[in-house]
Amino acid sequence: MPTVAAESGTRGRGYPQTLQRPVISSNKLRQQVWHNKSTPLFFASTRHCRQEIHIGGNNKSLNDCTNCRIAYPFLRHLPRVISSTQLDCLKIPNSEIASSHFVSFELTLHCRRNNSMTTSTDHSISRRAKQAAGQPISQLMGMALSNPNIISLAAGFVDNDSLPVTTTNLATQKVLAAGETSKAALQYGSNNGDEQLRTLVLEQAIAMNHAASDQAANYQTTLEQVFITPGSNQLLYLIADTLLDPGDIILCASPSYFVFIGAVKNIGGRTIGVATDNNGIIPRSLEEALEQIERDGNLSKVKAIYTVPYFDNPGGTTLTAERGQQILDIARRWSRDHKIYVISDEAYRMLRYEGPDVPSMHHWDPSLEHTIVAGTFSKSYSPGIRVGWGFLPTDLIGPLGDQKSNIDFGAPLLAQRIMATILEENLWLPHVEKLRGVYRQRCHAMLGALETHLGDVSGCHWHKTNGGLCVWLTLPEHIDTGMQGTFIKAAVEAGVLYVPGEFCYASGGEPANHSTIRLTFGVQSAERITQGIGLLSEQIKHWQ
Amino acid sequence: MPTVAAESGTRGRGYPQTLQRPVISSNKLRQQVWHNKSTPLFFASTRHCRQEIHIGGNNKSLNDCTNCRIAYPFLRHLPRVISSTQLDCLKIPNSEIASSHFVSFELTLHCRRNNSMTTSTDHSISRRAKQAAGQPISQLMGMALSNPNIISLAAGFVDNDSLPVTTTNLATQKVLAAGETSKAALQYGSNNGDEQLRTLVLEQAIAMNHAASDQAANYQTTLEQVFITPGSNQLLYLIADTLLDPGDIILCASPSYFVFIGAVKNIGGRTIGVATDNNGIIPRSLEEALEQIERDGNLSKVKAIYTVPYFDNPGGTTLTAERGQQILDIARRWSRDHKIYVISDEAYRMLRYEGPDVPSMHHWDPSLEHTIVAGTFSKSYSPGIRVGWGFLPTDLIGPLGDQKSNIDFGAPLLAQRIMATILEENLWLPHVEKLRGVYRQRCHAMLGALETHLGDVSGCHWHKTNGGLCVWLTLPEHIDTGMQGTFIKAAVEAGVLYVPGEFCYASGGEPANHSTIRLTFGVQSAERITQGIGLLSEQIKHWQ
Ligand SMILES: Cc1ncc(COP(=O)(O)O)c(C=O)c1O
Ligand SMILES: Cc1ncc(COP(=O)(O)O)c(C=O)c1O
Repeated sequence: MPTVAAESGTRGRGYPQTLQRPVISSNKLRQQVWHNKSTPLFFASTRHCRQEIHIGGNNKSLNDCTNCRIAYPFLRHLPRVISSTQLDCLKIPNSEIASSHFVSFELTLHCRRNNSMTTSTDHSISRRAKQAAGQPISQLMGMALSNPNIISLAAGFVDNDSLPVTTTNLATQKVLAAGETSKAALQYGSNNGDEQLRTLVLEQAIAMNHAASDQAANYQTTLEQVFITPGSNQLLYLIADTLLDPGDIILCASPSYFVFIGAVKNIGGRTIGVATDNNGIIPRSLEEALEQIERDGNLSKVKAIYTVPYFDNPGGTTLTAERGQQILDIARRWSRDHKIYVISDEAYRMLRYEGPDVPSMHHWDPSLEHTIVAGTFSKSYSPGIRVGWGFLPTDLIGPLGDQKSNIDFGAPLLAQRIMATILEENLWLPHVEKLRGVYRQRCHAMLGALETHLGDVSGCHWHKTNGGLCVWLTLPEHIDTGMQGTFIKAAVEAGVLYVPGEFCYASGGEPANHSTIRLTFGVQSAERITQGIGLLSEQIKHWQ
Repeated sequence: MPTVAAESGTRGRGYPQTLQRPVISSNKLRQQVWHNKSTPLFFASTRHCRQEIHIGGNNKSLNDCTNCRIAYPFLRHLPRVISSTQLDCLKIPNSEIASSHFVSFELTLHCRRNNSMTTSTDHSISRRAKQAAGQPISQLMGMALSNPNIISLAAGFVDNDSLPVTTTNLATQKVLAAGETSKAALQYGSNNGDEQLRTLVLEQAIAMNHAASDQAANYQTTLEQVFITPGSNQLLYLIADTLLDPGDIILCASPSYFVFIGAVKNIGGRTIGVATDNNGIIPRSLEEALEQIERDGNLSKVKAIYTVPYFDNPGGTTLTAERGQQILDIARRWSRDHKIYVISDEAYRMLRYEGPDVPSMHHWDPSLEHTIVAGTFSKSYSPGIRVGWGFLPTDLIGPLGDQKSNIDFGAPLLAQRIMATILEENLWLPHVEKLRGVYRQRCHAMLGALETHLGDVSGCHWHKTNGGLCVWLTLPEHIDTGMQGTFIKAAVEAGVLYVPGEFCYASGGEPANHSTIRLTFGVQSAERITQGIGLLSEQIKHWQ
């Protein structure tokens, strides 16, 4: 960080007297001028722009300059003070003005000149990198590490004990004992992935949908629409990067998978949360959210509806076949000037412990006009091999493929060959069966313990999930479960860790409920789960 | 693609008569108005922008609108015609105006209104996705596939025959036969990578630098500075994404690794090529490039200098120890307001067939103040396992880690455990020795054949590389080796494929030499290489 020296003489003169606070009303930027010498300036400046800034005076000059950078950092990273030798121009993009982040923000300018010329790294970092807040789970990891005996009901890991060492060994040996074919597995692969694996993954998905529905579908999806990625998270990132410009919107369940919310934010996009019930996103609420966005003049920014239709992370809810069709229908109807996609993130589909399977939205959109399917073997086989996939609308093959070719021009091939062999040798579904047994027991342990301890505590409720790895628990309103509250500290001291629900909320739309908790039953034994819920419940009752 | 219906009545009226062609002179945008009804419009529009466009008439109105999207697609994706129901506003960002792509582009407008209200997908795609031209190699792949007997001296693959099936099998079995540790290898890993692998990779690099130098260095690099990525290409992408805002600059050798050039372009950044000689980037030219950029008022945009210091792809050159220090020194001296990093992409370091090793820039910057090291096992072991790494300045750990946590929150762990075991069991360096033998022979075959056939053909010259996988060949000026020329078609018909040098040039700086060729000797046998160079040389002589 450079030392701040004397006040600027020439070009900077006058600025310390004309500090401003943008106030937003009816999507217009207004300015108020006030004086504050001591508060540091958060801005981005470019050297090449020779235009003087007249903030607070002449609105037009603010817009006229097309040279200057968008002042993102001051919106999102208040602690990162950027000093500069030149205050050139400040431009506030309309997309930001419309955003809720901006409404209550106070911008104060500090225009003293840095004469010491030390280098500031913050200047070197891109806006996107500044936006990337990282994934919140890392703070929690720290908490867990500092208390090794803690019962973590926070971890996103899968069960360690059932990880398929034997079948993986078998498949790997088969891959590596096949002469020339073995060598091919150690070579670079293609950008979209191994053809055999793509074939098997697509066939499997279609077969499952047919099995789950009494309606046949005429699948037109081709192999070109299938992409393999090192984890479905890369696919989700690529989709966000392919669809979103800064300020663009993805609608999602409230609450939603926080890594995806973070990735969208990183790209400069916005997530808008839609109300959910026991069957996930409520179509009527989705419709209302779109109506509101349209009234705000932002419909052109809506690019997709993100859903985790099977055993949502964190909500635990599953979309019924009917809801899936309704959501798809809404996406179709609201696609006026441009297409609105539906992302069907089916990460947990195989982890079903109760009840019948539901056909994917793919079944109602069998040539994938609107639907993007994301899938992964991380939960149903092994996250260490890390193979995910996407089924894409044909119009996204090119753009997403181009984006991918810049990141890795293809997923690691050995891992793909291992997974293809596991599928081909019929080692996958038996493993899934085994996993269901393991997780079903833990799921019951968690739901049972919640019932026992919190069943008649007023204000406590949770969704009785039939699959996946999460239970979403709501506590009485006066308990703030967040990182800034005291409840989480008490819970950690008592020996149990959870993910504060606040991490799982979109940047807009449905307001965050700070009395919520994401619990996972993937990692701990049934016994430890029961014990953990006991400890947590004690805290909750203390707080009553 | 929507059907184009009647001409717009109200807002669109008059537009077909005011079509324009931006012509660039001395970095300023001028406009010429002409009439062209039939040519489609390439533009991006947003619905919310209610301002009328006056292209060709009033320059100011073009800049005034801060609402509208940048019209990237027409610059890069000519075949992607975008129709829209509304032609709102067209804004041309300065970064584009300055870019050479723009100079000869003709923008023609087609302003008929689409009343049919069908959806247009291009509206849904982000600017970044539109910018992502994809990697050029795919066109070449197509050429190769359509002619299966072709001798491809274009492929970026490694030698298939020497791929280490036996040692990989051994290491994998060891990883998967270790009880609890085996299970850990199938679990999620951490964002920065496996600790043992990070330790081994860092130790190895430091040991190699010490062995290559008679000066000791006091390494302060910590394990926190080491990141593992699924291929070093992801690391390069993350670096570009972490450092670059649209319009920002990375200096690089002319020519340079085209995937990196493409990734920078995708992010909206610019690469500026610096003149090279037989020892890579010429420090004096680098200095001059920076002076020019400073004169243009763009120094604040320069974020890094990208080098492939060992057996550059495509140049084949290696930076001497002295040059490495000079480049580092230049980065230091020009870091005034902000830090300029040096990216040392050491992908080919291990593929040295002649002469002594050179210490990495890391050796002259042992706490990595400015230096970013990128490395990979793809070339020196197996690209199918796909493990790369980065050594980062401490100030980039946070921002790059945050970006990475959005893409995959950690590289696949099994592949990392396999590579760690290969290192630990001392299986790597013996394999490198073997590879050197294989590639040395091919390298000699290629250089020998070039000498035989083109040694006294005037205008032909190439760098006699001592390592890596590429030879960079320059032909007489009148031969255009590019995709649009007839030479490449003749070569393909004659049975040999190469990468046109034009793909390897930065977006600015040193002008592209369209009479250059990238040849690789990684994939073909010595015999086929000799034969291929023979066929290519025949063509060259035909064209004399
Ligand atoms: C809902 C959801 N989608 C996607 C993923 C990504 O999984 P992977 O990248 O391992 O395929 C996860 C992992 O936790 C998830 O919970
Ligand atoms: C110069 C250079 N850097 C980086 C890479 C990326 O290799 P990988 O992603 O396989 O580690 C390559 C591959 O061709 C390369 O040539």
